[in-house]
Amino acid sequence: MAAPMPLAPGRTIGILGGGQLGRMLSLAAARLGLRCHVWCPYPEQPAVHVATAATVAPYDDAAALDAFAAAVDLVTYEFENVPYATAHALNRRVPVRPTPEVLALIQDRLSEKQFLRAAGILTAPFVAIDTAADLPGAIAEIGLPAVLKTRRFGYDGKGQFVLTSATQVEKAWAAVAGAPSILECHINFAHEISAIVARGLDGATACYDPVRNIHENHILARSIVPAGIAADVSAAVRATAERIVRLLDYIGVMGVEMFLEAGAKPRLYVNELAPRVHNSGHWTADACIVSQFEQHVRAICGWPLGETQRHSDAVMENLLGHAVDAWHALARQPSTALHLYDKMEIVPGRKMGHLTRLFPLGRNPEAVLEKSLPASGAAASAKTSG
Amino acid sequence: MAAPMPLAPGRTIGILGGGQLGRMLSLAAARLGLRCHVWCPYPEQPAVHVATAATVAPYDDAAALDAFAAAVDLVTYEFENVPYATAHALNRRVPVRPTPEVLALIQDRLSEKQFLRAAGILTAPFVAIDTAADLPGAIAEIGLPAVLKTRRFGYDGKGQFVLTSATQVEKAWAAVAGAPSILECHINFAHEISAIVARGLDGATACYDPVRNIHENHILARSIVPAGIAADVSAAVRATAERIVRLLDYIGVMGVEMFLEAGAKPRLYVNELAPRVHNSGHWTADACIVSQFEQHVRAICGWPLGETQRHSDAVMENLLGHAVDAWHALARQPSTALHLYDKMEIVPGRKMGHLTRLFPLGRNPEAVLEKSLPASGAAASAKTSG
Repeated sequence: MAAPMPLAPGRTIGILGGGQLGRMLSLAAARLGLRCHVWCPYPEQPAVHVATAATVAPYDDAAALDAFAAAVDLVTYEFENVPYATAHALNRRVPVRPTPEVLALIQDRLSEKQFLRAAGILTAPFVAIDTAADLPGAIAEIGLPAVLKTRRFGYDGKGQFVLTSATQVEKAWAAVAGAPSILECHINFAHEISAIVARGLDGATACYDPVRNIHENHILARSIVPAGIAADVSAAVRATAERIVRLLDYIGVMGVEMFLEAGAKPRLYVNELAPRVHNSGHWTADACIVSQFEQHVRAICGWPLGETQRHSDAVMENLLGHAVDAWHALARQPSTALHLYDKMEIVPGRKMGHLTRLFPLGRNPEAVLEKSLPASGAAASAKTSG
Repeated sequence: MAAPMPLAPGRTIGILGGGQLGRMLSLAAARLGLRCHVWCPYPEQPAVHVATAATVAPYDDAAALDAFAAAVDLVTYEFENVPYATAHALNRRVPVRPTPEVLALIQDRLSEKQFLRAAGILTAPFVAIDTAADLPGAIAEIGLPAVLKTRRFGYDGKGQFVLTSATQVEKAWAAVAGAPSILECHINFAHEISAIVARGLDGATACYDPVRNIHENHILARSIVPAGIAADVSAAVRATAERIVRLLDYIGVMGVEMFLEAGAKPRLYVNELAPRVHNSGHWTADACIVSQFEQHVRAICGWPLGETQRHSDAVMENLLGHAVDAWHALARQPSTALHLYDKMEIVPGRKMGHLTRLFPLGRNPEAVLEKSLPASGAAASAKTSG
């Protein structure tokens, strides 16, 4: 079968979602001479300011969908909670990449984990929870501590509850508001690692070097590359990520979050798939010739995938909430790329921008990080699985 | 005197001009959370597709000027042939950076060269030519070969004539259409070098490493960094460029084109100033943390200037006319960043995009260049001064 024609420069990518990921996708598409048309429910979103066109309407607005489909040459999305129905309806008019089917699979933690289990890819043991009555048996099976997670719409630790005792069943069920959930074994991991992997329309795959992520209050605080893991572990991370996108016939960039146990023969668990560019891949925009954003554009547009090697080591640090107020001082930091998202309102914990500190290849960015960070940033390499 | 307040993220930069330089300025401003409003006379220009807003009107449209001034927080320009009257009128409403006065000085080759001469900065010997009758005396003074150049609106070798014989006076005068001109001594240079220099609102200056430029048919074909010049010459290039922006109280990025003689003690001539980001600085977007585009935005917005060191050596190659048709193959080249400008029409010689090939620091990009380029690109390190 001949590969579909690549989308030529000058054509238009539709992006569902107007956040910072859509913004950075738009900027990357622009570098390749492609235009973006953003669809988001609210005006003045970060991606709208840099896109060639915008549709501001709810995702179930049929007239907006018609006009959007007519205005774009293909569709992608910048977050996984875009309604499946919208993606599905659009896919009857223009190609949606990654496909609505993959989106649906990943939107549901249960089908996501079932896919991984069926593929023989290690995940934390899990049991589906449909009613509170399912919990005691699940706890008996999984053990404690365990994490109750809603099947849908969770992010940044929202919709999760860590159970340390069987007496917390009611509290946990209330925390997930009685939504269909899964109970998952709590992994005591040494590191959270992620892989930013891509698969092109031609079936080629490419994976950036694994990243070590440090969370604070369930939100990604920093990503460090190289991850400081053994070469065989790094190879396993890449191989697992590339296997996942191949098994799914996936098109685009995917973020694959993994937990790595401590010890000499640590096990690697896949925690979560993100069918989109990922916060832990932001460093690629400053440390690689082809960023994850451009890579996603290349993949969905049927262009050849770009190289994933980096020219510098990197530490990416999110600017959450009022941390962004220091923009003027941050602009003065040496060897640092500053990215601001032009969000209208500063909310505590909200991702307002990020920094990427670059280091010559082969230095130890973690050591540099420890020395250069304020005391407040030194904490928390621990995180409950989520 | 207290420095003016920096322009905060979320505010809007007005850009006069809608070409690729405005496009890349807009993309750089977006990374810093700033918005751009582009004013250009024609629709569908490259910068319009990525700017937050656009005004499409002639530059002498008073109503457009009013609305534009009201919509932006400061103004800059992406080419030097924007009408002085427009810049001047805008400057009474919002800051225009670089100033209209600097723009006027540089728009006229005569006042530009007179400024350099007065500063004791070496230029090719020149004489003002107001009528054809001035030419014979000027030739006697300057010698032959010499170059007749219009004082205004020249670019890419347009509005120029190389005189090799005194019998060509009429032909030369016809070539410049009888416009006020200068006659300039033809410099037999070994290399054309350029410096991309910036001066911030706080008076700080910063200069990227000098670049060697290779022209073909009077259009920049390639820029190479490092330039392959001696350390003392490189230091002189930087010092000259920084001195120029200081003397002019300049705010923003300037491209300074210079000619370097051959020999052990080569003289360095300043050929031309560009009061804007410059084609020979495009490599900075891929080889430096802070590109010339971001640097210009930082300077005009009163932000601290960024660092100018590079993490990679680089060869920038313009994609002229139908060279851009090969975009799909070009996207496959190793260690290469591809930039396409989304221009509506391909015209021979028109700048449609560019490539930056990156090399680890300290390799010899010129040697790599010679090996990697097609035969057609091997020619022409010679160029008539222009």
